[in-house]
Amino acid sequence: MSPNTTTTVTKPYVLGIDIGGTNTVFGIVDARGTVIASSSIKTGKHDNFEDYINELHEKASALIKAHDAEGKIYGIGIGAPNGNYYTGRIETQVNLPWPCPIELTKIVTEKFGVPSAVTNDANAAAIGEMTYGVARGMKDFIMITLGTGVGSGVVVNGSMVYGADGMAGELGHVIVRRNGRQCGCTRCGCLETYCSATGVARTAREFLEARKDEPSLLRNMPMEDITSKDVYDAAIANDKIAKDVFEFTGRILGEALADFASFTSPEAFVIFGGLAKSGELIMRPLRDAFERNNMPMHKGKIKILLSELKESDAAVLGASALGWEAK
Amino acid sequence: MSPNTTTTVTKPYVLGIDIGGTNTVFGIVDARGTVIASSSIKTGKHDNFEDYINELHEKASALIKAHDAEGKIYGIGIGAPNGNYYTGRIETQVNLPWPCPIELTKIVTEKFGVPSAVTNDANAAAIGEMTYGVARGMKDFIMITLGTGVGSGVVVNGSMVYGADGMAGELGHVIVRRNGRQCGCTRCGCLETYCSATGVARTAREFLEARKDEPSLLRNMPMEDITSKDVYDAAIANDKIAKDVFEFTGRILGEALADFASFTSPEAFVIFGGLAKSGELIMRPLRDAFERNNMPMHKGKIKILLSELKESDAAVLGASALGWEAK
Repeated sequence: MSPNTTTTVTKPYVLGIDIGGTNTVFGIVDARGTVIASSSIKTGKHDNFEDYINELHEKASALIKAHDAEGKIYGIGIGAPNGNYYTGRIETQVNLPWPCPIELTKIVTEKFGVPSAVTNDANAAAIGEMTYGVARGMKDFIMITLGTGVGSGVVVNGSMVYGADGMAGELGHVIVRRNGRQCGCTRCGCLETYCSATGVARTAREFLEARKDEPSLLRNMPMEDITSKDVYDAAIANDKIAKDVFEFTGRILGEALADFASFTSPEAFVIFGGLAKSGELIMRPLRDAFERNNMPMHKGKIKILLSELKESDAAVLGASALGWEAK
Repeated sequence: MSPNTTTTVTKPYVLGIDIGGTNTVFGIVDARGTVIASSSIKTGKHDNFEDYINELHEKASALIKAHDAEGKIYGIGIGAPNGNYYTGRIETQVNLPWPCPIELTKIVTEKFGVPSAVTNDANAAAIGEMTYGVARGMKDFIMITLGTGVGSGVVVNGSMVYGADGMAGELGHVIVRRNGRQCGCTRCGCLETYCSATGVARTAREFLEARKDEPSLLRNMPMEDITSKDVYDAAIANDKIAKDVFEFTGRILGEALADFASFTSPEAFVIFGGLAKSGELIMRPLRDAFERNNMPMHKGKIKILLSELKESDAAVLGASALGWEAK
């Protein structure tokens, strides 16, 4: 997992690539987790995957050259939606414009002449957290990423859990409300329909609908335009409905984490992503519900931590950490 | 994990001890999982733990001597309620007459002069299944034991998951019905309040109560005396209410397993214990609900297997397998 001293003398860097639906961010990272340099390209610009890889290779090579890192890249780590560590592929199409599966690591390794490894974005975040973040030194923790969806990465005994098929750790799709909200995964009531950024906006619309007579700052905009950021702004301005939305979101997440604790009895949960920046608005009800719903043996023992990775660097850092184990 | 050839030449056996609330069963087991000999003592007979250990030592030593196994025991593996692999202790009192924590492995190792290791009974069952049962060769699976309660053991990448504190894998206490049935763990709606033997009896009483006008063989006995065995007998005799009880139980378990699959993406679930013997009565609704509730990427891919370990030997076998890794 962690960089080896001998190799880092001659190849002291890794390249981290985070493939998102909108942007692909990449950066050169050293063994201490310093992002030496980073840049990005538009993921969606290329309908053709080959064109995309060509641009990525060109821009990343230029970055490497500009920072005197040619021949000094030990490995390439990639975070990608539905990235499978075992097969090296992007298995199924989620937010990406190309037909799947894509033989990602095979193509990247050929192109760059450097070993590469891929995993999904939440696992990459967990590896980043374990290598450079608040989970340094922890052997058992669970990463929860709150973004457009809810992702997770489970670390057991110091190792990432990939499961039998490389696709473990989909805690955003644990059903928290039987017959609840329709999820993009075809099922109903998944955690991510409640505790993602889109889940927060959905809750706000439900509350506004159900409490028609109650005034709210959120009524100043068309219902369908409401985002989690709008709900946050309203809550900060002391809007009752907006505050209740965060209360509800935090409670559902806290209840879910208490169940997850029964699984691997982790030392901590690490929370990352846009919603985590709502701070105590979500963290207080989350912690309350977590402790209230924990088994007696877990009460007061499991930490809920916020990621300390700089968000602008986190995706690249997480992906890059995987570069040290690329073969 | 598996017996080492060199050591087995001189010390070809392990001693497996299963500490249950009523009986303590122990047996001498060889590297192929053959129970050479086994015996038992009454757990509850001794109010004093020292008396209990003295009798266990005496009887087990006699068994070892009688089978020419003196000096040939490589290690002792113990399954016990709330047994903690890391600390070697029974942490908290569940169904046992002695004050806890108990320094179990320390005392057993001193007494027998042989290294020992302990874990909880469901983890021991998982290790037994991996070493001698249907999970041989599997690196990722989840053991579910359906007894008086619901236990579980999670295996990831070929290793037992113990968690940060040695107490991982309490899936019987995942909440499957928010504000549901009162559980012995202080919380409400835990899986084990529905899918254990006692849960089945509880469901039967609820159904009889709710469907007062419907005849049932289960009305031939006092409500409070109904056991899961009675429900089974009635279901086999084609009793509608009894069959619905198994339908309900299987469905809740299937839904829960689909959620558990999102966690570690296992190759299989292995089901063990009294209720598993109800066969298709519980397995058909279980499999149906599992597939219906699985994420698309898991559908049709994860096996649900019944343990093939002989039940009379299983507890001792499971515990004994841990003896090979005692240090």
